[in-house]
Amino acid sequence: MEPSVKSHCLSPGCSIQVSRIMRPDDANIAGNVHGGTILKMIEEAGVIISTRHCNMQNEERCVAVLARVERTDFLSPMSIGEVAHVSAEITYTSKHSVEVQVNVIAENIIKGAKRLTNRATLWYVALSLENVDKLVEIPSIEYVSPEEQEEGRKRYAAQKLDRIETKQRNEDIFLPAINVEPFTIGYSQSSLIHLVGPSDCALHKYVQGGVTMKLMDEVAGIVAARHCKTNIVTASVDAINFHQKIQKGSVITVSGRMTFTSNKSMEIEVFVDVDHVLESPKGKTHAVTAFFTYVSLDKDGKALPIPMLKIETEGEKRRFEEGRSRYLQTKAKRMPLAHKGQ
Amino acid sequence: MEPSVKSHCLSPGCSIQVSRIMRPDDANIAGNVHGGTILKMIEEAGVIISTRHCNMQNEERCVAVLARVERTDFLSPMSIGEVAHVSAEITYTSKHSVEVQVNVIAENIIKGAKRLTNRATLWYVALSLENVDKLVEIPSIEYVSPEEQEEGRKRYAAQKLDRIETKQRNEDIFLPAINVEPFTIGYSQSSLIHLVGPSDCALHKYVQGGVTMKLMDEVAGIVAARHCKTNIVTASVDAINFHQKIQKGSVITVSGRMTFTSNKSMEIEVFVDVDHVLESPKGKTHAVTAFFTYVSLDKDGKALPIPMLKIETEGEKRRFEEGRSRYLQTKAKRMPLAHKGQ
Amino acid sequence: MEPSVKSHCLSPGCSIQVSRIMRPDDANIAGNVHGGTILKMIEEAGVIISTRHCNMQNEERCVAVLARVERTDFLSPMSIGEVAHVSAEITYTSKHSVEVQVNVIAENIIKGAKRLTNRATLWYVALSLENVDKLVEIPSIEYVSPEEQEEGRKRYAAQKLDRIETKQRNEDIFLPAINVEPFTIGYSQSSLIHLVGPSDCALHKYVQGGVTMKLMDEVAGIVAARHCKTNIVTASVDAINFHQKIQKGSVITVSGRMTFTSNKSMEIEVFVDVDHVLESPKGKTHAVTAFFTYVSLDKDGKALPIPMLKIETEGEKRRFEEGRSRYLQTKAKRMPLAHKGQ
Repeated sequence: MEPSVKSHCLSPGCSIQVSRIMRPDDANIAGNVHGGTILKMIEEAGVIISTRHCNMQNEERCVAVLARVERTDFLSPMSIGEVAHVSAEITYTSKHSVEVQVNVIAENIIKGAKRLTNRATLWYVALSLENVDKLVEIPSIEYVSPEEQEEGRKRYAAQKLDRIETKQRNEDIFLPAINVEPFTIGYSQSSLIHLVGPSDCALHKYVQGGVTMKLMDEVAGIVAARHCKTNIVTASVDAINFHQKIQKGSVITVSGRMTFTSNKSMEIEVFVDVDHVLESPKGKTHAVTAFFTYVSLDKDGKALPIPMLKIETEGEKRRFEEGRSRYLQTKAKRMPLAHKGQ
Repeated sequence: MEPSVKSHCLSPGCSIQVSRIMRPDDANIAGNVHGGTILKMIEEAGVIISTRHCNMQNEERCVAVLARVERTDFLSPMSIGEVAHVSAEITYTSKHSVEVQVNVIAENIIKGAKRLTNRATLWYVALSLENVDKLVEIPSIEYVSPEEQEEGRKRYAAQKLDRIETKQRNEDIFLPAINVEPFTIGYSQSSLIHLVGPSDCALHKYVQGGVTMKLMDEVAGIVAARHCKTNIVTASVDAINFHQKIQKGSVITVSGRMTFTSNKSMEIEVFVDVDHVLESPKGKTHAVTAFFTYVSLDKDGKALPIPMLKIETEGEKRRFEEGRSRYLQTKAKRMPLAHKGQ
Repeated sequence: MEPSVKSHCLSPGCSIQVSRIMRPDDANIAGNVHGGTILKMIEEAGVIISTRHCNMQNEERCVAVLARVERTDFLSPMSIGEVAHVSAEITYTSKHSVEVQVNVIAENIIKGAKRLTNRATLWYVALSLENVDKLVEIPSIEYVSPEEQEEGRKRYAAQKLDRIETKQRNEDIFLPAINVEPFTIGYSQSSLIHLVGPSDCALHKYVQGGVTMKLMDEVAGIVAARHCKTNIVTASVDAINFHQKIQKGSVITVSGRMTFTSNKSMEIEVFVDVDHVLESPKGKTHAVTAFFTYVSLDKDGKALPIPMLKIETEGEKRRFEEGRSRYLQTKAKRMPLAHKGQ
């Protein structure tokens, strides 16, 4: 199998391949590469081709900023020493958005084996460098066929709808843990706090979306490890919407809590809050929220059973039920695909 | 002025110089290099010469582990593009301890100017590589004079006493913030949570002391910036004692809270807690605690007044008074030195 | 053996030592430190002393920029936990160039052993900070003897000639791989893409040469590992000439392909292309090109045979022959040295 990106776009410069050897710091102690490392690479490829594309015809210099990532499955974990190949291609453009589709292939250069580890879809908007509050118009790409374009238009409309809906979830509140009894939500609840530095913002003065996603995955991993005490790996990430620009010098707090457990998986809700340290605090909303699904693996990479979550409050119960319905929905969607041989 | 390390030790291999250009990631947004970056470089130099020294005569292979850093003053902040030169030398050895003295010089290679930015004293112990719970005996260095040795013996005895005393402070409890009114302690209280990776532990399976100190300074800087909303820099660090080894794969929580403000400085207490994610939690004590003093600078590098801390509880009041007495003690010690022209 | 830099220069401030512990991320999965890590440290030492030197007598503030690195042999690979000591000294100055000679020593601080791992010669030019397109005149160093100066003058003339000749190679074209049959050139051909961030450019707004060389070695290592499927290490690097400044925010593509294999070594050609993402695309030439030689090691560090390269096209055949002649030339040069006992 040699998975490759099917060409959707006939314009020049609308595809790229980014490759890198996975290093010890990219992986957990069991040697499995963090999902967040992959998400960060994916976003780096996306921001390069989107920024390149939006500067092709424009007089006005602009940079691409991540607006949304579609739900992503991690098909198999990568290991230290393997090479991750991220191929990205622009597949649709609307007036103000760029859709980028990405394939990630893990190559074991010693064994000579390659495998597809995940696919992802990202949406970018372009900001003017002179006035970062202004969206710049995106030059249209040339499509392989009118059908391709029509498919893209549908994906664009669907994500737009979902983007508006999820804005509401951002009001949810994350309370400090009080209960510390094992398997409760309070017990595994965790936070990371990160000071946004220059390298988090290479092209402009805002955090690249990939940096945020890497931190989100890291906190979800700590929550999962605390709950299971085993080797845990990212199985999937639900769609993530980015509603705020996060500026250099801000402090971002990334918090995660368990919401749902099935037999073989656990769902962790992650919130990103931004504190502009040098400004007085404004009314707080979450800058980003997302659901990460983790699985627990034994030494041979086989899925272990997940300890059942101890539910204590009404809010926890509601969130558990919502998690279950997301779980069932995903399972249902995956079924027919299995028959198609994917 | 060309400050240099006066030679204390006649043995071969007991000095080293580590130099590096300061990069954007080493500094805050005002361009001032974090004190933590310097502390990490200092510790790297210390661990190299201590490990080298303790293996010189021993049959048993060993690695040096940081046990204590004496109070350190940062005389002037460094900037991006300057070169930090860290010169370290072994200045005393007891049966189980190595004392390392360090000078840090900032060199502006564009302007051709050099200045001393700080001095530090570190204490290391040596662990056997076969049995990391065993302290290895340290070969004695050859002293320039018996007076040098006697001075070292006094420093050794003094730090030993202080080390035992501070062990008690480790029982103190750090509560989650409830009050969020500006200038209260709860308002600026902050945490960083870090997953210990392979690069944090190059010589053995434990975190290098410099990694921990860098995180401690980072959280203290966030607390200070939240309180002041200005450009803040590390002015000094009180003695830090390391009482626990922190293993790879642990999650360390580094928390900071304001304890005291004078007109021109603020004191931040920092705690490091260790969570062995893959083990069930044991009774918690802080692995490391320390006091950092920060100052707030205007655009020309002049010290700005610090907003007074709002004290609310009895515990806060007690800690404020303790902070004041540390402040006055340091001030008193510094006075006579000024007359000596140091 | 305690190798040291023989003093060539009597001027003050024309030598420096940079030391650092090698960490897991500096090495491949077999624990051997990447040649690129060493090249980056070498260049850091070089840029420090060159920038310091060119500002000594000049009114006009300037920064040193790497123009060329002479052919470098890596005598023995370093391991994680060893300390790399890089000593650099200015050995010659022409009107517009600075020659820096560097010695790298690996120290095993546990075993107390030191060994020379490589020597390198770098050439820098100095750019004015006010006008980066202007070369600044270099103050002359004071030589130990007129013979020293004359030797330097010859090295300067020789590199200048070579520098002009290699400019032509930059027109060569790097095509995407089509054939993926093992041991062909297309099979192992690889690329890396890197977005130039702030920490890649500490002294000015251009990438430091060491950052580029580290990426070049990384891609060559991937090509070599793909071809051999074993533990591979950098054996040498041919002279590298830097013909273009690469600005912050650019995207650099580093591509590598096998050109030649002997029984025990393989040669990889590396190209660096620059894409100024924020500008409209221009006609392309390679910013940097170089030849890396790799060897393949078994578990005891003994050289393994290299699978023969499958040659398919006329161009491949021509490049293979050119590689062979470089190989034979180097072999011939090395012979007499062996007799001199070096």
